Amino acid sequence: MAEKAVGVGLIGLGTIGTGVVKVLAENASVIRERLGFPLRLVRVADLDTQRDRGVDLSGIRFDADALALIDDPAVDIVVELIGGYDVARDLILRSFERRKHVVTANKALLSLHGAEIFEAAARARVDIAFEASVCGGIPILRSMREGLVANRIESVAGIVNGTTNYVLSEMEHTGEDFDAVLARAQALGYAEADPSFDVDGIDAAQKLTLLAAMAFGARLTFKEVPTEGIRGLLPVDFEAADAFGLRIKLLGIARAHRDGAEERIEARVHPTLISKQSMLASVDGAMNAVAVSGNAVGRTLFYGAGAGEMPTASAVAADLVEIAREIRRGGAGRVAPLSYVPEALRERELVPLGERQGRCYLRFTAVDRPGVLAHIAGALGEHGIGIESVIQKGRAEIAEAVAVLMLTHPAREASVRSALEQIDRLPDVTAPTRLIRIEEDL
Amino acid sequence: MAEKAVGVGLIGLGTIGTGVVKVLAENASVIRERLGFPLRLVRVADLDTQRDRGVDLSGIRFDADALALIDDPAVDIVVELIGGYDVARDLILRSFERRKHVVTANKALLSLHGAEIFEAAARARVDIAFEASVCGGIPILRSMREGLVANRIESVAGIVNGTTNYVLSEMEHTGEDFDAVLARAQALGYAEADPSFDVDGIDAAQKLTLLAAMAFGARLTFKEVPTEGIRGLLPVDFEAADAFGLRIKLLGIARAHRDGAEERIEARVHPTLISKQSMLASVDGAMNAVAVSGNAVGRTLFYGAGAGEMPTASAVAADLVEIAREIRRGGAGRVAPLSYVPEALRERELVPLGERQGRCYLRFTAVDRPGVLAHIAGALGEHGIGIESVIQKGRAEIAEAVAVLMLTHPAREASVRSALEQIDRLPDVTAPTRLIRIEEDL
Repeated sequence: MAEKAVGVGLIGLGTIGTGVVKVLAENASVIRERLGFPLRLVRVADLDTQRDRGVDLSGIRFDADALALIDDPAVDIVVELIGGYDVARDLILRSFERRKHVVTANKALLSLHGAEIFEAAARARVDIAFEASVCGGIPILRSMREGLVANRIESVAGIVNGTTNYVLSEMEHTGEDFDAVLARAQALGYAEADPSFDVDGIDAAQKLTLLAAMAFGARLTFKEVPTEGIRGLLPVDFEAADAFGLRIKLLGIARAHRDGAEERIEARVHPTLISKQSMLASVDGAMNAVAVSGNAVGRTLFYGAGAGEMPTASAVAADLVEIAREIRRGGAGRVAPLSYVPEALRERELVPLGERQGRCYLRFTAVDRPGVLAHIAGALGEHGIGIESVIQKGRAEIAEAVAVLMLTHPAREASVRSALEQIDRLPDVTAPTRLIRIEEDL
Repeated sequence: MAEKAVGVGLIGLGTIGTGVVKVLAENASVIRERLGFPLRLVRVADLDTQRDRGVDLSGIRFDADALALIDDPAVDIVVELIGGYDVARDLILRSFERRKHVVTANKALLSLHGAEIFEAAARARVDIAFEASVCGGIPILRSMREGLVANRIESVAGIVNGTTNYVLSEMEHTGEDFDAVLARAQALGYAEADPSFDVDGIDAAQKLTLLAAMAFGARLTFKEVPTEGIRGLLPVDFEAADAFGLRIKLLGIARAHRDGAEERIEARVHPTLISKQSMLASVDGAMNAVAVSGNAVGRTLFYGAGAGEMPTASAVAADLVEIAREIRRGGAGRVAPLSYVPEALRERELVPLGERQGRCYLRFTAVDRPGVLAHIAGALGEHGIGIESVIQKGRAEIAEAVAVLMLTHPAREASVRSALEQIDRLPDVTAPTRLIRIEEDL
């Protein structure tokens, strides 16, 4: 095993980049025992060359010149870990021009400009790999692309954002409100100073976009995905969920709707109520899991750490190993990055949210006065929406008002929405009604 | 996409073989959209050519001649699904001689004669793939081989046998005894007429052997793995587990023990008590799951159907797709079958069970007479074993005796065993004591 190493250049020495340095150093011998030859980090570029990251970079060229790194003949594979859109896109496209393979964790870029990036890689006959961009250490992309390759995928549903799962788990366990839990998550480093990317569901929508593309061969960008975050959930929602045998999780959900030859897809991100018995409901704290159903394999689930220095670096390093094998064999393009060959990728019509059929949890906020529930129930009835269960609570958190917590029978979302418009105009209803969708088969 | 198909020959048209015919037919178009060219079943061999399997074999040559199938130039990949040792081994080796790639679900053969088979494949420069041999549809082998390739694997622990998980789940939910539940499992087709291969843990040991080999690069055969099945578990054990916040699962467990340069491995199959909070504890009925911990990725879990016609066929078909890609690219041997290159596979010393350190559940059967518990506790104390918790029950199922159900503090298994030898000789102890190991970190 004294062969020449494949050379890796790393752009972006932040948290994940530092993890990649550690994994390639600490696990060099086991990687070599599996790969048959060494994988060597030869060069690192970061604008900040001064900060001590606690890793040994001796023998590795380290400067701020990303372009020179890409041009360096010792670099066979470029790892892009700076994130964001413009600069990252330019660096990736330049790498392709120089016939360098690319590994990236950049879900934002790929879920918006993926089509351009993947086409450029194919044209240059180089590989692009991005396992680290979805659910950190969980090998979900390669499992969908290879392990489940012989299945028609029916659905993908996952807890794909660790920050929000941590916040929801804590709200459930402690009974505290959103702001208190978010502040603690920020103090512990589980949430960013500006948490909106996570708590508003954008990060989850980006990951779901890549999962849906791979599942269904759908050309899709994350901006098309209906997305609701976890703001506005109250402790009373968690209490009610518990009483109903349910648990609240922020899920990204994508499903195929096949009506004859036409195939539409459903893709959405929102807080979801699921049975406590489901495997997804057991996913606690900052962990991630993705449930994939295929027509042959049935239900599968993939669980692990969706973020963090070392888990994400594990995924980056796996991509490096895969590409290194191809370099050594003189090839590229073994598997299509989005699972389907480019000619098979298609625009797909998205099923509008209003067509969703399913149970809902509704939290009404109303003045505690006789007849209020009758008005609410009446409006629901006029729209053909049946009531399965109701809990009413007076709560200090909703001053001067009571929360009426209700489960509906399965109903079409457009009908529920128009009933809620009518209800929210009732004089005794003092705040907009909150709807949380219930999913049965997760 | 009008390229020539890669040709598949299938030997063994039983349950899984029939599933493979279905998956390749029903999912032909999606497989082609991902692979870029067709994968075509061209020939089937089975001794029984008469039985109606409910699948359309028109256009596929079907006879009883497995040798002619292997020799058929239209067959690029041979699928071996007859199982067992001798004939399967001969067919696989003959396929290699004819430069045919092989896909198999034969865990028995590979966990005993794997070294010979893998060496023969490498010598012939063809591929052998066996995802279907471990946990049916769950892509656990490719996840370990590729997704987690950059990790030192610390442990693998799984529910790898659906029959026993079904029996244990039913015993827990219904309170019925083993024989009643097993009879029902047999009636429902979840258990074979001769159930010993499953209920005695042999099937699980074979799968664990392959998982441990891939995790640690260990040359190992299943006959070396200490194996205990689920016979002899009583309803009282499930009641006690519940009271202690635990659940009983048949687990295959493999761990690396690294003391400096020396690496020993632990591999064992036995009923195990785990926390109800653990993801593995949520795996119900005939489902399977494998938890893998790596030094970078941390804890991961892979869940799905571990057996059955279509899930297992999903795994066979995934292997066919992977090999078809290699055939089209003119290569083989992209990834080492056991994850480590052959030169890196090593004999590893197994850690004796007596060295295990951990909590135990003990079920003592004793005459209900004052002083019995004192004698038991005394013997444990003499061996340095502390008692965490005790429940005593009079039970009709143990005539004339009571069950004393105990959790110990962490103790060395050799000490527990010698204490139990002493206790089982006490005149008031009327049946051998049952020990169930408790695992904390699963």
